[in-house]
Amino acid sequence: MQPALSPAQLTAALQWRYATKAFATNPIPAETWKALEHSLQLAPSSYGLQPWKFFVVSNPAVRAQLRPHSWNQTQVTDASHLVVFTRRTEMTEADVNAFFNQMVAERGADATKLEPYRQMMLGGIVQGKDLAGQREWAARQVYIALGQFMAAAAVLGIDTCALEGIDPAKYDEILGLQGSGYQTLVACAAGYRAADDKYASFKKIRFPEQRVFGRI
Amino acid sequence: MQPALSPAQLTAALQWRYATKAFATNPIPAETWKALEHSLQLAPSSYGLQPWKFFVVSNPAVRAQLRPHSWNQTQVTDASHLVVFTRRTEMTEADVNAFFNQMVAERGADATKLEPYRQMMLGGIVQGKDLAGQREWAARQVYIALGQFMAAAAVLGIDTCALEGIDPAKYDEILGLQGSGYQTLVACAAGYRAADDKYASFKKIRFPEQRVFGRI
Repeated sequence: MQPALSPAQLTAALQWRYATKAFATNPIPAETWKALEHSLQLAPSSYGLQPWKFFVVSNPAVRAQLRPHSWNQTQVTDASHLVVFTRRTEMTEADVNAFFNQMVAERGADATKLEPYRQMMLGGIVQGKDLAGQREWAARQVYIALGQFMAAAAVLGIDTCALEGIDPAKYDEILGLQGSGYQTLVACAAGYRAADDKYASFKKIRFPEQRVFGRI
Repeated sequence: MQPALSPAQLTAALQWRYATKAFATNPIPAETWKALEHSLQLAPSSYGLQPWKFFVVSNPAVRAQLRPHSWNQTQVTDASHLVVFTRRTEMTEADVNAFFNQMVAERGADATKLEPYRQMMLGGIVQGKDLAGQREWAARQVYIALGQFMAAAAVLGIDTCALEGIDPAKYDEILGLQGSGYQTLVACAAGYRAADDKYASFKKIRFPEQRVFGRI
């Protein structure tokens, strides 16, 4: 495939991104938002198991309820879009089978031939990890999706702010997630920076190359 | 900023990406690789604390040593580039200060005025989390960088394969990371897919929209 972007264009977009504090009110156009949802749905995950669900919270009353459980950060209510990233609470054989059966069906594959792959997933994730291990494995996958989402937004000229300073249990309560099989981990606001967000002009602070890279 | 990509271009690039199994031998051009390193260095992290170090392993002998500890996956030795993603093993006041002091210096800010921000970071990460909590927090940040890296590669037309099936302790040993303050979490191969990698043509399996998205 031809690169969609030149190296310089990519770097410029990622350099332009910052943790937006103040959002303007203008909404992300529908087609752009759809592409951002695709960036979530297409995110890579271990074995392809997608142990996640993304809640797009549009209801202003619900967003107002979430804000006090987010250190009162204005992004929760003001940004065009708010996504709550949740992980699968537990990984069972049914989760593996859902993925496996869809794979067999959509690829017209032979389930018997692929059975060793199913066993590998079961051994690696369902039997091979305790509940805490499954949850942390799932959390890491969710953060891949978060990283892909913020990078995707940047190249689309959309601002984001990841919100880790939230109360996940309160989010679960407000979003009605108890018993759903999913748990809140982190949220991310997306939209357009306000013209007067002073943080936009602050120099990005990044450790020097020799601290960040090892060369072997 | 003008979007660097249209929504359709972004989706096409992310749809094109897959977990590459067989890499060709041609190398990533230097300018493109530099942009991919920038995508790592510019990755977002909680408070901006960058609790990570990325090891670019170019030495073929070292890559050959790593391969048996990676389920013998050929990507480890064959891809143009191999990055080992490591997390900071422990977060101390010195880590917070390194970031804080650089911020104060580069922004010409007043350290006294910003002291509450330093205290907030210390309270949130250094004092507010035990060692296991710090490690998991750091791991999640590293996975943001991994997600940004794979998305960045896709829009540059570069193939990747994240490798979670590795033995982190063996990697640490081979890379000489014991006592370095960094621990291996995951690796990622990058380069160009081999013309005969049959996985390239397989339909991408993604759960249906109603399983992946909640709308509130």
